[in-house]
This record gives sequence, structure tokens and C-alpha cells, in this order.
Amino acid sequence: MKRRDFMKTAAATTATAGAIAGAGSFPAPAVAQEKRELKMVTTWPKNFPGLGTSAERLAKRITEMSEGTLTVRVFAAGELVPALESIDAVISGTADMSHSAAYYWQGKTKALNFFTGVPYGFTASEISAWIRYMGGQELWDEVYDDFGVKPFMSGQTGVQAGGWFRNELTSLDDLKGLKFRTPGLAGEVWRRLGVSVINLPGGEIYQALQSGRIDAAEFVGPLTDLALGFYKVAQNYYWPSFNEPGLATELAVNKSVYSSLTKGQQEIIRTASEAEYDNMYAEFNARNADSLKTLTEEHGVKVHEFSRELLIAGGKAAAEVIEELRAEGDEKTKKVVESYLQARQKLVGWSKVADGAYLSARLLPFDYARP
Amino acid sequence: MKRRDFMKTAAATTATAGAIAGAGSFPAPAVAQEKRELKMVTTWPKNFPGLGTSAERLAKRITEMSEGTLTVRVFAAGELVPALESIDAVISGTADMSHSAAYYWQGKTKALNFFTGVPYGFTASEISAWIRYMGGQELWDEVYDDFGVKPFMSGQTGVQAGGWFRNELTSLDDLKGLKFRTPGLAGEVWRRLGVSVINLPGGEIYQALQSGRIDAAEFVGPLTDLALGFYKVAQNYYWPSFNEPGLATELAVNKSVYSSLTKGQQEIIRTASEAEYDNMYAEFNARNADSLKTLTEEHGVKVHEFSRELLIAGGKAAAEVIEELRAEGDEKTKKVVESYLQARQKLVGWSKVADGAYLSARLLPFDYARP
Repeated sequence: MKRRDFMKTAAATTATAGAIAGAGSFPAPAVAQEKRELKMVTTWPKNFPGLGTSAERLAKRITEMSEGTLTVRVFAAGELVPALESIDAVISGTADMSHSAAYYWQGKTKALNFFTGVPYGFTASEISAWIRYMGGQELWDEVYDDFGVKPFMSGQTGVQAGGWFRNELTSLDDLKGLKFRTPGLAGEVWRRLGVSVINLPGGEIYQALQSGRIDAAEFVGPLTDLALGFYKVAQNYYWPSFNEPGLATELAVNKSVYSSLTKGQQEIIRTASEAEYDNMYAEFNARNADSLKTLTEEHGVKVHEFSRELLIAGGKAAAEVIEELRAEGDEKTKKVVESYLQARQKLVGWSKVADGAYLSARLLPFDYARP
Repeated sequence: MKRRDFMKTAAATTATAGAIAGAGSFPAPAVAQEKRELKMVTTWPKNFPGLGTSAERLAKRITEMSEGTLTVRVFAAGELVPALESIDAVISGTADMSHSAAYYWQGKTKALNFFTGVPYGFTASEISAWIRYMGGQELWDEVYDDFGVKPFMSGQTGVQAGGWFRNELTSLDDLKGLKFRTPGLAGEVWRRLGVSVINLPGGEIYQALQSGRIDAAEFVGPLTDLALGFYKVAQNYYWPSFNEPGLATELAVNKSVYSSLTKGQQEIIRTASEAEYDNMYAEFNARNADSLKTLTEEHGVKVHEFSRELLIAGGKAAAEVIEELRAEGDEKTKKVVESYLQARQKLVGWSKVADGAYLSARLLPFDYARP
């Protein structure tokens, strides 16, 4: 996609958003406190490691904490509606809530990317600081209000992997025409580096790599990627994903349904989502560590860092993409980008002296006790 | 304290632990589902930034989610019992729960340090991975079971500051005899670097710095330290705290009280604590960033990184301290250290390619959009 087309998509989808918002008015559900079943659709396969498992836990917490006044029933991708129709199912009332990632719905407004994760953007802890304490949640509420949806962060993958490449990357020239599966704004950044970007659902990646339809792919990280078997067809695993440094999942609840709940039930949904934010992240960290060990020690995967040259070129392309969204996005997007960048300036400075400095110090030459 | 004395303390406190455990049997509270008030003591001043505010939110969540079947009443430090008697108040049943940090109770067993944070140990996300998915919670339950207490992580400060020093540190020699306020295992590490370690409650630090009783101090980070006014008497702020790279707070609940609750109420306490783990961390990150800006721009504070030499010397001392606890600690401590080190080996490797690599990449020379 050329730069002009990229911006055109952003503008065009605003109209769609308005149309769908109209469809969001429907009769108010029955009064609260009676026993109710709530349908949660998801964009993940049943019990998919990290993502599907967290959706199940979230449902269970809501059911248990409400002493059964709410029972949340989880539908895996395709069980009630196709994965990528989840948000529309919530908007129309076919489902009560959707467990997914806001950036899947960037066709409605590109503002939604910022509530999931953007190239060279926030880490797991930074996006949480912005959402909870620096105005992010209020903006997200405002964006989704047009669709009759109330959003919550519901999980976090942490820093993702940069991708699986059949061949080692020796220079930026290797990227020219490389057929790479990667979605969203990340795709737009890679496109500007010369890559031929293809988007495919997670379940189709393996076969596409095997058949040569694509040369490279990224999905989430070791836990999910080991499960999907990418190592069998591509052996070079690159780090870090400067494009997806921390991906927040969402729980998007039909607003009429949410409004009809008691204050206690609303707090249960909100708090359960917050608890899973850290819990999913913990599951990814614990199991990514093990999965990476399996990939390298049992399957001969070679772990590489992206070259300095590529990380800088990626930074320049990411900056362009964000700048264009601020200058030429729809009104909501412009407002969200501005808030994001203000928070980013503060949080990046903070992370540098805090986490960045500590993680560097821990690599210094001294022997720590070993198991 | 000499090395031998340090280990003696560890052994001696095991006996105390047994004695206190005996005092933990008392009549079972009234049956659940009636309206109950639960007393939460804390080790923080009323609404103290980050820590006290999170304890208040946690209490409010429990009250709201339970639809008032539980009302949690918060007592600031000293209101019901003195701060450092909080855990004993829970053990004796004077209070139902305590919001604090497990390492304050290391006098009972040094194992408790590992559930808060140890020198050159886990970051915020790593300790959560260990506690939730790598056996940490089970060990913590086992350690506290002796005292009739059920523990939950209830918050996280993130990487702490290294400390406030009246004079710049030019070499390791500057540490000899320096009177430095810092508690726990961190104190033990500094002691081995030649420092004269003094422990004082947070509220007494400022005056001690002003009077010259101490030359330097560390507490938490910019948010708390700005509130306590340390910048008025010491202008050199050092980073990062290799000794406190991520401090988890706890909610320690009287086990008989916890057992008398319904499954739903138990899940409410557990989930509310998990939600606050990330929420407190988000508050610290958001407000630390602002507070650091205020400290440097309005109060002339100079931010320094500890020298490479000091970070390495600190790493060697930290390794010694941990190794000694493994070799000579009480049985519970040995078991906890072993689990901690096994998890650490995996998680450190993971953080290196994930967060570490990303935070380094973000410092590369390219201009990102600015607010």
C-alpha cells in the first residue's frame, strides 16, 4: 500500500464506524441481580496458549466472584461468529463481550491501534500507566462510545518476537520484496522497509511458510510460535519486535449490557480484567522462557538480534507512520496520538533510568548464584 | 553485622516463627454470607502516595464486588497497631488482613525476602511469573502456613531508586563508613561494600539526613521521595537500585478468616489483589515519571547512574548473600532460594532478548514523533 492509500483507509473507515454505531441501539436487557448468562466471543482458538487460556480464566473469575449471578460462557474463534467479526457481534448484541485485541478493529478507526500497541511504542508497564493514570482509558471509552462498547484491558503478551525468517538477514537489501506475514501498523512499517507484507490469520501461517507463499512471519512469541510449529520451516528467530513491544488484549463489553449490571457486577468485570492483565503477562513470561529453551535446545532454532541498522531504519519508518496518523488521521485518532505521545515522552525517560538501567546492570560481569 | 551474625539471625528467627505459629489457633469466625467487616492494617501512612492509595483501592474493590457482604476498613500505620506489628496483629486475630511487604517480617524467616524482592533479583514482571506460574505462590503459602496466614501479592513499586547521597560518589572508597539508611538484604549488600547501614522508618529519614545522623538514604522512588522532601538535604539521586529492582507488596490474610469466607468472597480477595498488583505499578510508573521531572527541573536534583565498578561490586556482594542463604538458611529458606534461582535462570535469559533488547533499541538514534 502506498502512503496515500494508507491514509485513505484511515479516513474511509470513519464512515463505516458511524454506520455501525447506529446499529448499536437495541432494547435494554433484563434487570440485574437475576441469574444471567453472558456470551464472550474471542478471536483465539479454544484454550490457545496464553490468549485463550486467559479468556477462560477471566470468564471463570467473573462467574465465581458474582456467586453465579453472572455466568460467562466462552466461545472460541468461529464457534459463534468468525474471529474477525467478534466486535460486530458485540455491537449488534449477538454476543455480550469480546476478548480480542483492539487493533484488529483498526478498520473502524486507526485510533484503536494505540490501545493495543504501536511500533516503537509502549511496553507492558507503560501502556498500563497511560491507560490507568494518564488519560488513556478515558480516550478509549470515548472512541468506543460511538459503537456502544465499553472497553477494558484484559491481558498483555509482553515484548513479542521479531519474526521467523527462512534465511538470515545480512543487510537491509535482504528485505526488498521479502514476503512477510505481519498485520496492522507493524505491517506498514515493514512495508516502508521494502518488505512485501501479507496478512494471514494465525492458523494459516505455517502452511504459507511451508509452501513458500511467504518467506517470513511473525505472530506472538515462543509460547505461541512453538505451538504453531514455525521452527520446522524457518530456523532464524529475530529479536526484539520493535513493532510490537507490548500488546494489550481487550475485553469489549456491549455498553447496554454493562449498564444494566449492578455496580458490584460492573466492578467484578473491571477488576477481573485488570487481574488478567498481569496474569496473562505472567503466563507468557513464564512459558515463553521455557518455550525459547525448547526451541533453541531441542529444535536447533538460531536466535538473532535485528541489526542496529535495521532497528534504526525501523525507528524512522515507525516515526513517519505515527506522525502521519497525527497529522492526517480522523479526529479521534489525532486526539489519541497526541495523548499517547505526551505520555510516551515522560514514560520513556522513566523506563530508561528504571527498567532499562537495571536490565543493563544485570548483564555486567559477575557470577550470581545458579540453581 | 558480620557474615556469621547475619546467618545467626536467620537461624534464631526460625524458633520465633514456631512460637508465633502456636498462637495462630483461635475460634473460627462467624459463618459467611452475613455482612461482615474486615479490618485491614497497613504499614503505610494514611493515603501515602502509591502504597496507601493502593491499599484503599483494594479495600474498596472488595467491598464493592461483594455487594457489601464484606466491608473492608483500612487502618493506616499506627491507627490500630504500630506499623511493624501488622503481621502479628493478623496472626493473633486483632486484624483480619495486613497490607505491607513480606520482607518486613524477615525476622520470622529470611525466606520472606524472596516474595518481596532481593538484590539483583526479579523485576516486576519476573516475580509475577515466578509467583503465579513457576511455583512461587505454593512456596509462599507453605511458609506462611506455619503462621496461619494466607498471602497474596497486592502491588508492585517497580524498579526503585538507588538512593539520595549528599555528595557525589567518585569511587568505591567513598562508601567506606558512609552512614546509609537502607533495610533488609539490600542493607546486607551495602554493608559488604563498606557502608555503615542504619535502618529507620520512612517518616524519620528526612530529619536524620538533615541532622547529619545519616549521609545517604533510599526509600522507594521519585513519587514517594518527592513527598518526603529528601531533595532539600541531598541533591544526588542515584540509579538504578540493583538491590530493589521490583518490590511486591503483600496482602496477608488471617487463614481462619479466609477459610470462613464463601468461594466467591475468596475469589474476590484474590482477584482484587491481582488487579492492584498492576494498578499500583501503573500509578508508580505514571507518577514517578512526573515526580522525576519535578525533582530535576524544579528542585535541581542531579540524576546519576551508579558506576560500572559499583554495580559489579554490588553484584558480587548480592551473589554472596544469596549463596549463604541457600547454604545456611533455615529449611524453608533453602527451598525457596532453590526455586527462585531456577526460575531466575530462565527468566533472566528471557528478559534479555525481550524487554532488555527492546529498551536498548528504543535508545538508538532516530527521531520519534514528539508531543
